[in-house]
Amino acid sequence: MQLTKQTLNQRNDHVYDALVVGGGAAGLSAGIYLQRYLLSTLMIDKGKARSFWMQELHNYLGLPPDTPGREVLKQGKEHYLSLEGDYLNAYVEEVIDEGETLAVKVRIGRQNPIYKVFRTRYLIAASGIIDHLPQLADMKNVFDYAGYNLHVCLICDGYEMRDQRVGVFGSTASSLQVAFPLGWFTPHITLFTNGAFEIEDELRDRFTAAGYTINEQPIHQFLGENHQMSGVELADGSMVELDAGLVSMGSKYHADYLQGIDLEYQGGNLVTDAMNRTSHPRIFAVGDLKVGMNQVVIAAADGANAATQIWRDIRRVEGSRRSQRVA
Amino acid sequence: MQLTKQTLNQRNDHVYDALVVGGGAAGLSAGIYLQRYLLSTLMIDKGKARSFWMQELHNYLGLPPDTPGREVLKQGKEHYLSLEGDYLNAYVEEVIDEGETLAVKVRIGRQNPIYKVFRTRYLIAASGIIDHLPQLADMKNVFDYAGYNLHVCLICDGYEMRDQRVGVFGSTASSLQVAFPLGWFTPHITLFTNGAFEIEDELRDRFTAAGYTINEQPIHQFLGENHQMSGVELADGSMVELDAGLVSMGSKYHADYLQGIDLEYQGGNLVTDAMNRTSHPRIFAVGDLKVGMNQVVIAAADGANAATQIWRDIRRVEGSRRSQRVA
Repeated sequence: MQLTKQTLNQRNDHVYDALVVGGGAAGLSAGIYLQRYLLSTLMIDKGKARSFWMQELHNYLGLPPDTPGREVLKQGKEHYLSLEGDYLNAYVEEVIDEGETLAVKVRIGRQNPIYKVFRTRYLIAASGIIDHLPQLADMKNVFDYAGYNLHVCLICDGYEMRDQRVGVFGSTASSLQVAFPLGWFTPHITLFTNGAFEIEDELRDRFTAAGYTINEQPIHQFLGENHQMSGVELADGSMVELDAGLVSMGSKYHADYLQGIDLEYQGGNLVTDAMNRTSHPRIFAVGDLKVGMNQVVIAAADGANAATQIWRDIRRVEGSRRSQRVA
Repeated sequence: MQLTKQTLNQRNDHVYDALVVGGGAAGLSAGIYLQRYLLSTLMIDKGKARSFWMQELHNYLGLPPDTPGREVLKQGKEHYLSLEGDYLNAYVEEVIDEGETLAVKVRIGRQNPIYKVFRTRYLIAASGIIDHLPQLADMKNVFDYAGYNLHVCLICDGYEMRDQRVGVFGSTASSLQVAFPLGWFTPHITLFTNGAFEIEDELRDRFTAAGYTINEQPIHQFLGENHQMSGVELADGSMVELDAGLVSMGSKYHADYLQGIDLEYQGGNLVTDAMNRTSHPRIFAVGDLKVGMNQVVIAAADGANAATQIWRDIRRVEGSRRSQRVA
């Protein structure tokens, strides 16, 4: 059930089998599988998963290729709630390893928040990442286009950009190297530094040899209408026409709540085994937070794996006939 | 495009980037990703993927939990064809390693078949498995219920069987041990040997201790109507009422065409790395054929991984600007 400030005290003494941090594709898929294994699950979501911003999922098997990401999330949440999983809109602040259980400290509400600790046997970190976007004076101007034709994922949207005039927006010289695989899809590439960093000669020569234009002026704003970005206006008032943009500025990893636990990372990503278990036996990581490709369908598969392994773990300890105990 | 006997000679001199054997969930997802990477793809399907038989997919994120498997396949095939991938209804007989390419020998048509060899740089084995079913005198009686409430997948359908009277149909004593994890969902379990094998005392004792009934008579037929199996009629005319069945008789692996190539297997499953590459650098395996769980969402993720790795391989060799070459 959807928990609220009013109803959540009904769960005071409950130890969940699994607590899922994040209600994006990975978390929802995990939750659906967990509930179908008759495990008691709490999903905690702070809202606005990365796929929420995707206006069209073009590569998810079984859905028409213009399905908005938020539709998948809506369907998944309904599915999870229909299986009687608990769901709470809140922010996870901290996880404390208590041995047999994990204590999960949660903040509920933004104004006059209340704090609560949930206990769980297993935790699934499905809190994902969010892309850094160009920082312009008017951020609303950035949000107008992000997820439409201002893309953040080459794997997802390279095909959409084929033979288009594409601007690449990086945060470091190195981040602009996404232009090379983008060059598979289009030769019409302009690299924007926004005046924020230098490009060393060797890399500059490689960009130039590939036929890419380099623009090092500060950006004033994106141009366009109806969420279709049509170019960039620079600080000096000049304009560059574009058909699409690709942002390559890295990501924020939503994993602060795990800081108190010793886990193996690779870059910002959690290292897991084939069943998505981290280096901690009771903590799993799924979706964009773990090492691997950031794709909705892969996140959904991760959730299935993690849930299944947790079921196997619990079943080995408890034996059979869960149905009678909880029915 | 959908290739036919009439049109397939248009592809005589073409070397595909990837040939996908099998048009189930794994193959279709791979095909969608491959075409979106601007790689030329041929999918060869003999029809009737395992998920085709699933009347309701209950655990696939983004779809209502009563979506038939065949709907996912239909949507996926339309999606793939809309991306201009080639598709051929045929049977793959043999794959020959020619070094830079693989030659794939195909039989097209059942009566008066024609034979053809396609060439490809990479091959994705997505041909899956099919479950062995109880062999009764009247197999139509078996097909009436298989995929409805005569289940073949505990992971998928354990939840559907909770607290039901379930018959387990095995092919060996060992195969009946699926009853133990099934016992998580229901205590009302009858094990059927169909009179085909013996159960040793130690295992018999474990089944009895768990509260399971053992029935060792030959089965005459399944009872029921409208695809809902309601029990079993035994050879002696007696009947056992059931709410559902679980078949645990192993699977046929559709991988005969790979016999001429030295590949690493684990049981009947192909061993792959995290990106679904087999021990052969140009052959990938996805879905039920590879080691791992047999789930539609995992198969779909496999396809994304394999396609992406093939793209990376080809891009490294060819460099950029595919778009101009093939446009």
